[in-house]
Amino acid sequence: MSATILVLDGPNLNLLGERDPETYGTDTLASVQAQLAAKFGGVRFEFFQSNWEGALIDRLHQAHRAGVDGIVFNPGALTHTSVALRDAVEAITPPVVEVHLSNIYGREDFRHHSVLAPVCSGQISGFGAFGYLLAVSFLVHGSS
Amino acid sequence: MSATILVLDGPNLNLLGERDPETYGTDTLASVQAQLAAKFGGVRFEFFQSNWEGALIDRLHQAHRAGVDGIVFNPGALTHTSVALRDAVEAITPPVVEVHLSNIYGREDFRHHSVLAPVCSGQISGFGAFGYLLAVSFLVHGSS
Amino acid sequence: MSATILVLDGPNLNLLGERDPETYGTDTLASVQAQLAAKFGGVRFEFFQSNWEGALIDRLHQAHRAGVDGIVFNPGALTHTSVALRDAVEAITPPVVEVHLSNIYGREDFRHHSVLAPVCSGQISGFGAFGYLLAVSFLVHGSS
Amino acid sequence: MSATILVLDGPNLNLLGERDPETYGTDTLASVQAQLAAKFGGVRFEFFQSNWEGALIDRLHQAHRAGVDGIVFNPGALTHTSVALRDAVEAITPPVVEVHLSNIYGREDFRHHSVLAPVCSGQISGFGAFGYLLAVSFLVHGSS
Amino acid sequence: MSATILVLDGPNLNLLGERDPETYGTDTLASVQAQLAAKFGGVRFEFFQSNWEGALIDRLHQAHRAGVDGIVFNPGALTHTSVALRDAVEAITPPVVEVHLSNIYGREDFRHHSVLAPVCSGQISGFGAFGYLLAVSFLVHGSS
Amino acid sequence: MSATILVLDGPNLNLLGERDPETYGTDTLASVQAQLAAKFGGVRFEFFQSNWEGALIDRLHQAHRAGVDGIVFNPGALTHTSVALRDAVEAITPPVVEVHLSNIYGREDFRHHSVLAPVCSGQISGFGAFGYLLAVSFLVHGSS
Amino acid sequence: MSATILVLDGPNLNLLGERDPETYGTDTLASVQAQLAAKFGGVRFEFFQSNWEGALIDRLHQAHRAGVDGIVFNPGALTHTSVALRDAVEAITPPVVEVHLSNIYGREDFRHHSVLAPVCSGQISGFGAFGYLLAVSFLVHGSS
Amino acid sequence: MSATILVLDGPNLNLLGERDPETYGTDTLASVQAQLAAKFGGVRFEFFQSNWEGALIDRLHQAHRAGVDGIVFNPGALTHTSVALRDAVEAITPPVVEVHLSNIYGREDFRHHSVLAPVCSGQISGFGAFGYLLAVSFLVHGSS
Amino acid sequence: MSATILVLDGPNLNLLGERDPETYGTDTLASVQAQLAAKFGGVRFEFFQSNWEGALIDRLHQAHRAGVDGIVFNPGALTHTSVALRDAVEAITPPVVEVHLSNIYGREDFRHHSVLAPVCSGQISGFGAFGYLLAVSFLVHGSS
Amino acid sequence: MSATILVLDGPNLNLLGERDPETYGTDTLASVQAQLAAKFGGVRFEFFQSNWEGALIDRLHQAHRAGVDGIVFNPGALTHTSVALRDAVEAITPPVVEVHLSNIYGREDFRHHSVLAPVCSGQISGFGAFGYLLAVSFLVHGSS
Amino acid sequence: MSATILVLDGPNLNLLGERDPETYGTDTLASVQAQLAAKFGGVRFEFFQSNWEGALIDRLHQAHRAGVDGIVFNPGALTHTSVALRDAVEAITPPVVEVHLSNIYGREDFRHHSVLAPVCSGQISGFGAFGYLLAVSFLVHGSS
Amino acid sequence: MSATILVLDGPNLNLLGERDPETYGTDTLASVQAQLAAKFGGVRFEFFQSNWEGALIDRLHQAHRAGVDGIVFNPGALTHTSVALRDAVEAITPPVVEVHLSNIYGREDFRHHSVLAPVCSGQISGFGAFGYLLAVSFLVHGSS
Repeated sequence: MSATILVLDGPNLNLLGERDPETYGTDTLASVQAQLAAKFGGVRFEFFQSNWEGALIDRLHQAHRAGVDGIVFNPGALTHTSVALRDAVEAITPPVVEVHLSNIYGREDFRHHSVLAPVCSGQISGFGAFGYLLAVSFLVHGSS
Repeated sequence: MSATILVLDGPNLNLLGERDPETYGTDTLASVQAQLAAKFGGVRFEFFQSNWEGALIDRLHQAHRAGVDGIVFNPGALTHTSVALRDAVEAITPPVVEVHLSNIYGREDFRHHSVLAPVCSGQISGFGAFGYLLAVSFLVHGSS
Repeated sequence: MSATILVLDGPNLNLLGERDPETYGTDTLASVQAQLAAKFGGVRFEFFQSNWEGALIDRLHQAHRAGVDGIVFNPGALTHTSVALRDAVEAITPPVVEVHLSNIYGREDFRHHSVLAPVCSGQISGFGAFGYLLAVSFLVHGSS
Repeated sequence: MSATILVLDGPNLNLLGERDPETYGTDTLASVQAQLAAKFGGVRFEFFQSNWEGALIDRLHQAHRAGVDGIVFNPGALTHTSVALRDAVEAITPPVVEVHLSNIYGREDFRHHSVLAPVCSGQISGFGAFGYLLAVSFLVHGSS
Repeated sequence: MSATILVLDGPNLNLLGERDPETYGTDTLASVQAQLAAKFGGVRFEFFQSNWEGALIDRLHQAHRAGVDGIVFNPGALTHTSVALRDAVEAITPPVVEVHLSNIYGREDFRHHSVLAPVCSGQISGFGAFGYLLAVSFLVHGSS
Repeated sequence: MSATILVLDGPNLNLLGERDPETYGTDTLASVQAQLAAKFGGVRFEFFQSNWEGALIDRLHQAHRAGVDGIVFNPGALTHTSVALRDAVEAITPPVVEVHLSNIYGREDFRHHSVLAPVCSGQISGFGAFGYLLAVSFLVHGSS
Repeated sequence: MSATILVLDGPNLNLLGERDPETYGTDTLASVQAQLAAKFGGVRFEFFQSNWEGALIDRLHQAHRAGVDGIVFNPGALTHTSVALRDAVEAITPPVVEVHLSNIYGREDFRHHSVLAPVCSGQISGFGAFGYLLAVSFLVHGSS
Repeated sequence: MSATILVLDGPNLNLLGERDPETYGTDTLASVQAQLAAKFGGVRFEFFQSNWEGALIDRLHQAHRAGVDGIVFNPGALTHTSVALRDAVEAITPPVVEVHLSNIYGREDFRHHSVLAPVCSGQISGFGAFGYLLAVSFLVHGSS
Repeated sequence: MSATILVLDGPNLNLLGERDPETYGTDTLASVQAQLAAKFGGVRFEFFQSNWEGALIDRLHQAHRAGVDGIVFNPGALTHTSVALRDAVEAITPPVVEVHLSNIYGREDFRHHSVLAPVCSGQISGFGAFGYLLAVSFLVHGSS
Repeated sequence: MSATILVLDGPNLNLLGERDPETYGTDTLASVQAQLAAKFGGVRFEFFQSNWEGALIDRLHQAHRAGVDGIVFNPGALTHTSVALRDAVEAITPPVVEVHLSNIYGREDFRHHSVLAPVCSGQISGFGAFGYLLAVSFLVHGSS
Repeated sequence: MSATILVLDGPNLNLLGERDPETYGTDTLASVQAQLAAKFGGVRFEFFQSNWEGALIDRLHQAHRAGVDGIVFNPGALTHTSVALRDAVEAITPPVVEVHLSNIYGREDFRHHSVLAPVCSGQISGFGAFGYLLAVSFLVHGSS
Repeated sequence: MSATILVLDGPNLNLLGERDPETYGTDTLASVQAQLAAKFGGVRFEFFQSNWEGALIDRLHQAHRAGVDGIVFNPGALTHTSVALRDAVEAITPPVVEVHLSNIYGREDFRHHSVLAPVCSGQISGFGAFGYLLAVSFLVHGSS
């Protein structure tokens, strides 16, 4: 149970809590991180957010090399466009769980398609910050 | 914490454990139900599976009238075609969480689109039987 | 003028009056039936609602065998998906009028297409419960 | 019940009764008008037909300024193409009922889509000249 | 050669012989069954027709459990829409031959696509009631 | 051979000779008319050009009522959009030959589709002003 | 700087100020014209609005013949459908600037495509009545 | 029962038995022909295979002129592309049965569409070499 | 006026007069050739028909090398599919006029698109055998 | 009038003046900046160009935090692909005006769609460097 | 190094050097063959060009039977349409390299898709006659 | 022959040799570079790999300013999405050859389209690391 989990967030998620709270809720990334730490005492978390696609790819490679046990990934808007992130996820060993705060299927059409989903372990969409807890729960307790 | 949760399963899920275990795992509906009961002691569960769309609609209406606190719904293949189930979900009050055992986005194209997702609280896809536990976890602890 | 008319309603229409009154109005199926009886004294009405596609097909066959003079049919969400209902309508003799409470062309894209319309006598959409009266009016006075 | 109703007809409807009677029936515009007058004694009707889109837009604006109580509109072939008529209908106050003599959903594919339907009160299609009576019936008795 | 074959028929096929004889021929289900019995003396046939998708799924499961040697399936209009039937066919062991009375490729566009064909052994389309004989012939003599 | 032929031209064809001569040639409508008169001595020609769709529809109706023997119609840009003109052509008795100066299939994609072609006798495209002569030639000598 | 500019407005723009002020603002065509006159003292303006496509085409031809220095054109709903107006714009010499009061890209899908834009000098969309001033500013100061 | 049947095979079917046996089986054209001769003693068979579309068209015309009683046609890859073969089939009198060794609906998307199917008597797909026997069976015993 | 014209006909046109006379008329290729010879005395005609695409390409190359003055080409069904013929037409010097006996725009959708039309001088469609005369007329008198 | 405006330029705009002058003009970013400073004396400008999407997102966030009064944004090729930039624009408070030097609607199809336009105040396209002046003019004088 | 390589060319490539030199260069097939012989002294080349799809299929089969070591194939326009050639390439053993003289991705849309590419070893496009040398270079030195 | 060539690699190509060797081979970028150096002694190579789109754009601009003689570019997943890279390639002077290790046309559909190919000199796909040698070979020997 001393797993290491990378929690990776993409573009504009640094604005969490500020940006359109009706869609994204009032949690900030910091409060999400605090909830994860509180709930999963035995897990070592690494947190990384970037608005730069290249930085996210580099971070996935680094996590792979460092041998993390799992990755929770909210790619933000890059969900819908980045084949490069998809290839990075496909190329690495640790299981990746895709998380979305909002229910992407209840929003604009162009948000209904995830380029990354086919190469992730699974997808959790629509549960706000609680989705991060579900994702970690799966990585720690559910995949074996 | 004495919530009542309906766990609803659609066509062919009675074959769980028998049918294509590589895709759907070796759990049976019965073992999934046992896991839920074991994990969520204080929750009263109702379980219903049917291969008949009409029976599922009737059951959703009944749950709504009975005032259940939440519904975990794996609509099976009706996910991709049933506007009637979508309308039933949209018409009722209890929150509905859509669950899929397999990662539907990693399978055939026609399984990538869920007619129901836009009117559910959220969607959990790809975590096998563990996904039911995540769904109940959200209904009991995450939505408030 | 002692015509027999079947008024057939599909999935979720049993919730009429309860479900989203802004879209569907406050009439219930019972009040619609009362209005029809009041307005068309000489007509013998049969009313049938089901959430089960198979039951609706069986009922269309039965009406055909019984020789009803016309059918008012609100197929609900099956409007957009059921080729089986379309074939049933096409296979039988009595004229069928398709009725929708809401203006289906002013709603989501997937509601703009009716699989049944090409084989019905005509379609009435957007007039609430009043649409049923218009449909019966056509069957009794308009088709000859 | 002393309502004023504008009955507006678009391109080629001046040929009614002459043109393809199997599709459009043997009624002429004049006979439709006579039927309306006979059936709705208390209603003041205005009739206008034009093959010119601009004339129809002007007439809708004029009816709006004159405060008519409702409009029965058969846009003919402009149904499928005229965003300008749609904008006119959307911009004015009186309710507009879209009427088609033939069942447009049983004809060529390009006739299945109405540009105007989303902004009309409702649509009546397939009942021949009787459809005009249904439309007026709704405007006089059904919308309140 | 004492095989057991299930002959399964979907919606509206109970109307066979009555409905549109130009498309479907004058045979009834009963006469098709008689021809099969006459032609394949050593085969034990089970016949089942239903307008209910759920009943067809249940019957496929049952045949699988009972160990029938093959299934001749004319899904009627569900051919074009039912992913649930497709999943049932895919989940069971006995070979399934899809049969259509009419040549579905010579009819309306929406009848050109079979959702079930990819998971059946093969498809026979356009030979009227004779197609059932061909299908049984394959199941008894052709697959080994 | 004392036929009456209407030569009908749509929007922007009054600019012929002025507008983009590389595409449309240097002939003017007047010179085309002169060529027709010179070549077909025994034919009575009527010429009409308008930038107004309604005027063209009215003119087609009028020609029909007047009993012209044939119509040469270059609908200009309305070729690609006007269902109303198509309905007018379809509703009238005289044969209509569609003519285009330029080869519409060698230009922008949106010019490749003619809404009117299916209801005309035939189409002549790409021969400049000479196409009008071919069209009249057919109407006078070719259709019998 | 004594340029002559034609300001041309299409269908329903005569309703400006009356129609849906949230989308189109409270300016009327008259007030827009007053603002233009006030701001561009040395410019001679011609204003023309019509709900008739044919009238707009004729006016473009006339402006071309009269040698105006530029045209500000808000084609209203014809933006999305009129190839005839596109051909007129392409056929004439003066530069044409397309203007839209509302941001057409933030509205319904069918308003996202302008048939005319490819042959205009440029497009200004979303700035309300101020857009007309920007357009004139370009024609007077920006194109040389 | 002394019918003459042409068995016609298109491109690459000369490789039968050599090419991808998992998809096409181990039968060769020669062994298929032997099976047909053995099974249908009273039938006179003509066999023709070509990789050349033109040769297949010529052969269809020739068979028509020679008055064969039926044609079994496996067009190979030309199934999906050749309108010319379709026109040849449509132009001739003998009934044509389309046969495919593999289940074309279970393969790549571009193999799901047959250009010829709408003008054939019917289609048999997925039964390997046995499909040829079924086709002949229909031509000899089933069509009358 | 001693021009040499190649009249080239594609697949199935050897059946002209035999095949579906309602669509293609009762003229045979021989009678068309006779009409051409009779009408254009001074022209030297070469006639070639083939059901083989390759033969048609070779013939186009040969005509180019021989320096014919123009080509009348009815590619039959290859019209809709053959990029190779298009490239041959584009690569050669003599003008090519595409001719169709039937109005291809009034038939099945797949016949509405010509792959060759963009590289031909023009297209003539719907005038039966008379279309060949129009085509030659253009090549002899109209192009200069 | 002492507003602060951020002028933001995306990929390849550092090449302005060097790259394809026929499409983009001869102005450089520096000369555009000089024109803006000269024309809008009272405005404080900040200029930023980057070929890195992440840098542009960060800069939008920074401008939002710094409280700029408006943003002129030419996203270059990211216009057509970047949902992440769209989300950044939507998440921040200052009004954003999208500017394109060339008329994007007169270029390749893939440049006709702007992912960002729906969440900007408006769009200006096709006026070269002058478009930046129009955009600032709107931000300073037009939005209130 | 005494490999045998078949160099196969499809329709219209016999015109190389004559046809549109700006697109295809001034090399002829003969000069390409000379360059190959000069550059790859130890390789035995076979050259075959045909405008006939069937001939190309036969030649591929023959090369397979003869055991050539590799095939350089420029299918010309058949690249975009011929499933039969694709099946031939897929059915044979020697590696096939697809070569195009011009950059097919920089030309018309219908040239962007190669039906054969998925079953070839690879594709080389845009390097003129030099592409043949690259292809042979790979077959001789690169695949092992 | 003392040319300078930039070899540019996009996202995830730093994983070469590690990632999915069945698709991408066992060469690493370092071994590819060694092969290039060994084979092209007289060429000065510059190598650059980045997971950041912006860095690749900057590098293309830099190479252009530095006057390299040619660029070998494997854009990885950005091939399918980056219009910004396309614009960079189009804006610069040195010829760019697009290279892919795997045959992109034999993989998932979304990998079949290259946004960059139309503006590159040519494309080489499917030859593994050998493709880089072919590309350099063209730049050094083939383009002149």
